[in-house]
Amino acid sequence: MTRTIGIALLGLGNVGGGVVKLLEANAAAIAARLGARLEVRAIAVRDVAKAQRVVEVDRGLLSADVDGTVARPDVDIVCELIGGTTLARRATLAAIAAGKHVVTANKALLAEHGAEIFSAAERAGVDVYYEAAVCGGVPVIRVLREGLASDRVEALHGIVNGTSNYILTTMAATRRPFADILRDAQALGYAEADPTLDIGGGDAAHKLAILVNLCFGTIVDVAAIPTDGIEIVEPIDLDYADMWGYVIKPLVIARAHGDPATGPIEARVHPALVPASWLLADVGGAKNALYVQSYALGPSLYYGAGAGMLPTAMSVVSDMIEIGRNIFARVAGAPRPTRPRPAQPRPLQSIAEIRTRYYLRFGVHDRPGVLGQLMTILGAHRISIAQVV
Amino acid sequence: MTRTIGIALLGLGNVGGGVVKLLEANAAAIAARLGARLEVRAIAVRDVAKAQRVVEVDRGLLSADVDGTVARPDVDIVCELIGGTTLARRATLAAIAAGKHVVTANKALLAEHGAEIFSAAERAGVDVYYEAAVCGGVPVIRVLREGLASDRVEALHGIVNGTSNYILTTMAATRRPFADILRDAQALGYAEADPTLDIGGGDAAHKLAILVNLCFGTIVDVAAIPTDGIEIVEPIDLDYADMWGYVIKPLVIARAHGDPATGPIEARVHPALVPASWLLADVGGAKNALYVQSYALGPSLYYGAGAGMLPTAMSVVSDMIEIGRNIFARVAGAPRPTRPRPAQPRPLQSIAEIRTRYYLRFGVHDRPGVLGQLMTILGAHRISIAQVV
Repeated sequence: MTRTIGIALLGLGNVGGGVVKLLEANAAAIAARLGARLEVRAIAVRDVAKAQRVVEVDRGLLSADVDGTVARPDVDIVCELIGGTTLARRATLAAIAAGKHVVTANKALLAEHGAEIFSAAERAGVDVYYEAAVCGGVPVIRVLREGLASDRVEALHGIVNGTSNYILTTMAATRRPFADILRDAQALGYAEADPTLDIGGGDAAHKLAILVNLCFGTIVDVAAIPTDGIEIVEPIDLDYADMWGYVIKPLVIARAHGDPATGPIEARVHPALVPASWLLADVGGAKNALYVQSYALGPSLYYGAGAGMLPTAMSVVSDMIEIGRNIFARVAGAPRPTRPRPAQPRPLQSIAEIRTRYYLRFGVHDRPGVLGQLMTILGAHRISIAQVV
Repeated sequence: MTRTIGIALLGLGNVGGGVVKLLEANAAAIAARLGARLEVRAIAVRDVAKAQRVVEVDRGLLSADVDGTVARPDVDIVCELIGGTTLARRATLAAIAAGKHVVTANKALLAEHGAEIFSAAERAGVDVYYEAAVCGGVPVIRVLREGLASDRVEALHGIVNGTSNYILTTMAATRRPFADILRDAQALGYAEADPTLDIGGGDAAHKLAILVNLCFGTIVDVAAIPTDGIEIVEPIDLDYADMWGYVIKPLVIARAHGDPATGPIEARVHPALVPASWLLADVGGAKNALYVQSYALGPSLYYGAGAGMLPTAMSVVSDMIEIGRNIFARVAGAPRPTRPRPAQPRPLQSIAEIRTRYYLRFGVHDRPGVLGQLMTILGAHRISIAQVV
């Protein structure tokens, strides 16, 4: 076999290293499935001279010139693994402009600049794949785009941030305070030095925006998604949850209301009480899962590693294989109706419009009348009460 | 939009009725995603005069002539929903010979005649899709074929027969005997009048053969797969399982040994003790799930409705959409390396070669020395004992 697909990697951190490792480890199987080899021909890195890398690579492949790398004539697919939205956006648009297909794992980029990127790709006639951007190695994008192509998604519940899930799972098992567990998670590499995006819900909101786009055909402003992080959860909340038969999970939730094509979309990110008997309650550690409610299939669940070097690389390389097949079939870049559709605006419900059940915990003085005052205030705001401890 | 894809249905039972219903209910969304309409142009049924049908259809579409139906020039995709392996095989091969693409939900047909059907399809240059054949509406075929295209599956554990899972789940909840629950399941429509294929493990073995082919690239003789049904399970077994922290689930299991491309394959079907803390233990009722262990992704799980009118129809229609896209992209029928490969024989382990842990229950006389004799016999066969009650 002599056919090869040329790959350029932008970034050689954890995921980039995983891609290099997986392309080596599964080279024979990948070649058999694609009928061609995937060959890394260039790697753009910030510091070419850096001594220690995640994987051993031929130093001749390295370059600090991102623009030069994406434009190389021997490159068919550019794999954007830089992260962030500034350089990543510029490099992705440059790759598209140079006629390269793109694979990205960058949820922030797609959530914030997806419309721009997908319309540039459509104009240039190139593919943009992003399986790794949501739920890491779990192929939820393909499931929603192709597996459920004939169905209509009604609601989604997901655990899409592994760091938050790890912290809440550990808190449930140990009842240790949030700050302690976070410090350990950072030491173990489960949480970033700056964990704000993970524990504050921002990362989950990016992924939710991508899912909403895919399932409900509309672009939502990430900043408008009601988002609460897990830092508000204390061990005592887990005691109450336990008492009532719940566990606390870091959820993303989306639901379509009214007309299936144009009705408003409910989307929110927050820690939630989940019935202990529900499958999502058993998704522990740093694992991810997406629970989909759709018209024909009913409930379905997709579970696995949402992060990590090889799981994320697995999704990236599977995307490369699919683009490779498209290239050989001469359909790469062909407009696909299943692409995220930028044009169909549907209103996003504000938090004030969302009707749901809440868990409220108040720190109050232990004296007669306090509870009555609370109940009166809640009643005045037309909030009815199901249970009080 | 004027483009249409012509569909012929062979059979108008539960799944065929579901296909008709889903094509109507989601017509707008399907047309938007495919850029074309899927139009049922002919339906072959055994008895055209039959008064009561699962769905209302134009009686002008009905015909008892299967050969005439599959050869109609206005039909692009033939959807085989007859079941069994005699007429279904003949009709599928006739459709392929007439140059039609095929969608089938028939696991027995593919497990027993897959090699013949896929090579006929390859020669004729047509597509054969079969998402509904395993796990009903859960898109496990696409997940394994495309989502995990860059990965290497090491082992599979699946609950793929809804009837068996329903009976064991109900037995666990009520401790009622097998025969009672089966009778109720038949009354509720969860079990066939002749339940042999479901409760005896034959249906699960068909599905396992398809999964083994897809994951390990080899054709196994279904008759050679060690297969035990669930009829041997009694309520007392559930008591013991409970005592040790297990539940009993109707599993299919497959694992690759030795060389990843040529090593022997372990495949078996039987009720198994599953740790209560494992996700598969929570897959209750008539639901299906597939738990995959792969090199890069690690463990992942896919869960949902494994049977039923609309869930199964959902997979069938999603296959039609994909074939429709292939037709428009002019790649339908193009050889795909990810098709089940008929040519690569790998040895199937016999039950004697499989080393695993067993649960044994003996009815013995309650007198001294009996246990000792049992232990001695087990010891003589080099069976070591972990726990005795």
